[in-house]
Amino acid sequence: MLFSLRKRPHGYEEMDSSLKSELGEIVGPDNFTDRLIDLVSYSYDASDNDHRPDCAVWPSTREQVSKILSLADRLGFPVIPRGAGTGLSGGAIPIRGGVVLDMCRMNRILAIRIPDRLAVVQPGVVYSDLEKALLPYGFFFPPDPASGKVCTLGGNVATNAGGIRGAKYGVTRDYVLGLELVLPDGRITRTGTSCMKSSSGYDLTRLFVGSEGTLGVITEITLKISPRPLTFQTALAVFATLRDAGQAVSDIMHSGIIPSVLEVLDANSIRVIRQSAGVSLPDGSAMILAETDGYTDAETSFQMDKVIEVFKKNHVSDVQRAANAAEAEKLWKLRKSVGSLAAKLRTNNVSEDIAVPISKVPDLLTGISAIVQRLDLPFVIFGHAGDGNLHPRIMYDRADPDQVARMRKAVAEVFAFICEMGGTLTGEHGIGLSKAPYMSLEHDSAALELMRSLKRLIDPKNILNPGKMALDGSSDGH
Amino acid sequence: MLFSLRKRPHGYEEMDSSLKSELGEIVGPDNFTDRLIDLVSYSYDASDNDHRPDCAVWPSTREQVSKILSLADRLGFPVIPRGAGTGLSGGAIPIRGGVVLDMCRMNRILAIRIPDRLAVVQPGVVYSDLEKALLPYGFFFPPDPASGKVCTLGGNVATNAGGIRGAKYGVTRDYVLGLELVLPDGRITRTGTSCMKSSSGYDLTRLFVGSEGTLGVITEITLKISPRPLTFQTALAVFATLRDAGQAVSDIMHSGIIPSVLEVLDANSIRVIRQSAGVSLPDGSAMILAETDGYTDAETSFQMDKVIEVFKKNHVSDVQRAANAAEAEKLWKLRKSVGSLAAKLRTNNVSEDIAVPISKVPDLLTGISAIVQRLDLPFVIFGHAGDGNLHPRIMYDRADPDQVARMRKAVAEVFAFICEMGGTLTGEHGIGLSKAPYMSLEHDSAALELMRSLKRLIDPKNILNPGKMALDGSSDGH
Repeated sequence: MLFSLRKRPHGYEEMDSSLKSELGEIVGPDNFTDRLIDLVSYSYDASDNDHRPDCAVWPSTREQVSKILSLADRLGFPVIPRGAGTGLSGGAIPIRGGVVLDMCRMNRILAIRIPDRLAVVQPGVVYSDLEKALLPYGFFFPPDPASGKVCTLGGNVATNAGGIRGAKYGVTRDYVLGLELVLPDGRITRTGTSCMKSSSGYDLTRLFVGSEGTLGVITEITLKISPRPLTFQTALAVFATLRDAGQAVSDIMHSGIIPSVLEVLDANSIRVIRQSAGVSLPDGSAMILAETDGYTDAETSFQMDKVIEVFKKNHVSDVQRAANAAEAEKLWKLRKSVGSLAAKLRTNNVSEDIAVPISKVPDLLTGISAIVQRLDLPFVIFGHAGDGNLHPRIMYDRADPDQVARMRKAVAEVFAFICEMGGTLTGEHGIGLSKAPYMSLEHDSAALELMRSLKRLIDPKNILNPGKMALDGSSDGH
Repeated sequence: MLFSLRKRPHGYEEMDSSLKSELGEIVGPDNFTDRLIDLVSYSYDASDNDHRPDCAVWPSTREQVSKILSLADRLGFPVIPRGAGTGLSGGAIPIRGGVVLDMCRMNRILAIRIPDRLAVVQPGVVYSDLEKALLPYGFFFPPDPASGKVCTLGGNVATNAGGIRGAKYGVTRDYVLGLELVLPDGRITRTGTSCMKSSSGYDLTRLFVGSEGTLGVITEITLKISPRPLTFQTALAVFATLRDAGQAVSDIMHSGIIPSVLEVLDANSIRVIRQSAGVSLPDGSAMILAETDGYTDAETSFQMDKVIEVFKKNHVSDVQRAANAAEAEKLWKLRKSVGSLAAKLRTNNVSEDIAVPISKVPDLLTGISAIVQRLDLPFVIFGHAGDGNLHPRIMYDRADPDQVARMRKAVAEVFAFICEMGGTLTGEHGIGLSKAPYMSLEHDSAALELMRSLKRLIDPKNILNPGKMALDGSSDGH
């Protein structure tokens, strides 16, 4: 079978109509598209990168995925697995064309096995659909990404997604027991186990968790799940200085408890909320939302008392402790509104995702503020202080090249700054395109070379999601 | 530089005196040995495998480890990293000769950073030494392997060790944030992060966790640590039938809580304890030791009430709930004595380490009992029922070839049986030599081939701990 293909940059060829119809035959004509409107849709995710694919398919079985990869292995076209496209690093952008595998139709929850403490799902299941399915059993899947209402579990696994409860409950990686995968040559394999523990062979499962679709296509996920806590306590604290708030975060560890939530918001976030949300909120340079959880009120009170003790030691200027669920909801609303309120300040914004060792949170807050202020762009900083993972959001106007240049400079300076202090480029979003150029700031050359050699070993023809994670040494998208 | 080396099976050559003196120069003469008594010591671990190395060294720096591996890379001799030699699968046996790297002199705790929730240690630190160092801060390192008083953290990482609190707290893998490693060609690299979260690049750290010294030599470990719970409750329950006990384990998950400990002991274990320990213990077919933990008595009581409710529903014949720490200690003693008491029944014993999905614990208990009874060997079964990880211990006399043959048959049948029901060959001990022949019962051919290709990629000359984990397709030791 021969296709007449036109060479494009990076050596990939444009798909011709006979190849497209072969793809259509694999998935069925209703599950194939090369309509312009679809190609445009699939050219974006939630980052500021874009590039159109040649076509897209909605596979519904692992066998279809296997056939597509076998074909790609033979002919050498890019295959880009995609969840809900909520990624903030460009991980799902078909930067070298090819076929997008939209996994959203593989969206069945295959099993919920409470006695075995696990759920088996297809990759297209939306995070919150699993949450809803687990609720009647009193269970939950803890990672809790902010995009939980739309993002898919396959995307969560591919990016090792985290969320608001990471300090206490960890991230996606901590809950993936096993995977069914299609390898780049079309072979189907299973990794991991349905047991709570296994030391059997190399940990293939976690090699694929966080690999952003560059090593295999996930077709089934076995997840460990947890019993839901039964009670919660929530408090909101305002501090006069960033340093006091940061020190409080760092001191919490000395108190011997781990709050289920410890969110920090900077002065700009507070200003945005005060101006836009029409709520009465004391002025301050930083705010912390804390939550403790447990089975009993005694347990949540014990922990919240400790948290508030630490706040007081660090000169908190105001603490509101929610007396009931309604009051807690009000405090949560403030935290949850900041992202969308801040986004209104300019046409565009970039949401970063750096993490540092927890004790560096004060330095991180002041250092980032200094960088972005100097470059004269509006910004807010908020995020998961309890695990050192903050989201500076920098506002700019894409139509203004000067603002774009300053935004880029700010991001680059922030990455250099946080890697200097032992931080990581991404706590929970992944590397994708956006952070690929900065990988060598964080990883030494032997580690980077090992990552690249793993990619070459498993995907020697560079079929799966090419151009991402600096795996071929390129820096697409910048 | 040329050495006159004698070829041995598997292609490795016997080390001559000039190579040995070069190794001695790297580590210093006091840190090198080829005395017979040392070679015999290093020919064993806690499994029933043995093979002598050519020599052993005690490196004290990563640079020494790097030089040794560079030399091995050039000359092709096996290098076997070793912790305390407590492994039960033969992972530290120098089955093809070579040099043992005894890491016990790299035993410094480099940092305890409470605000960052981490500890940085050298691989030779003994588990309980880290425990002692963390105690004044109110922190602990949760995996809690049974050999904690002697085993090293390097060995824990190499085998992904687990322990008695795995159901609630997870295993070593869940706590390793980053590693410093020497690769088989002598290059030194760092993987992972000092942050609580990172999605930056492939998860190299967890590729090395559980790799049993076959991919790199660990020279530094960054571990996440946790605040210690403050209160505990303990109860011991006796059941008339194995099935009732197993069903209680499986039902616990429906109660919405996870006990910190849920240990099961079979009828033979109970008999051994009654006969040998001189304690009054009701007769029964199975016993469960349960512990709950938390910050407050309300929390531990709430959980223990749920546990006992489940026991009652499953026809428990006797429950003792410890009223205080001294009573709890008495109950714990019963559980802890079973291993050593049972070991007295015959000269030798093999301690297995299988795990199954939690709901299969009843089938596992009855199925294994049937297999070993049929082969007419004394045995006890006990272990961590809360995470489905049980340790059948089969007694035999090594001097009796018939008993050895029946023991081997029993082990092989047990592995086939548990893999059939979706179990794993090893919950927390590793594959080593003992389980290498059974890898294909658990892993499909694509997964096994991927493991082998990872080994060839990272250690193309097969220098590091050769002959283990079925990575070269051989089945040494059987």
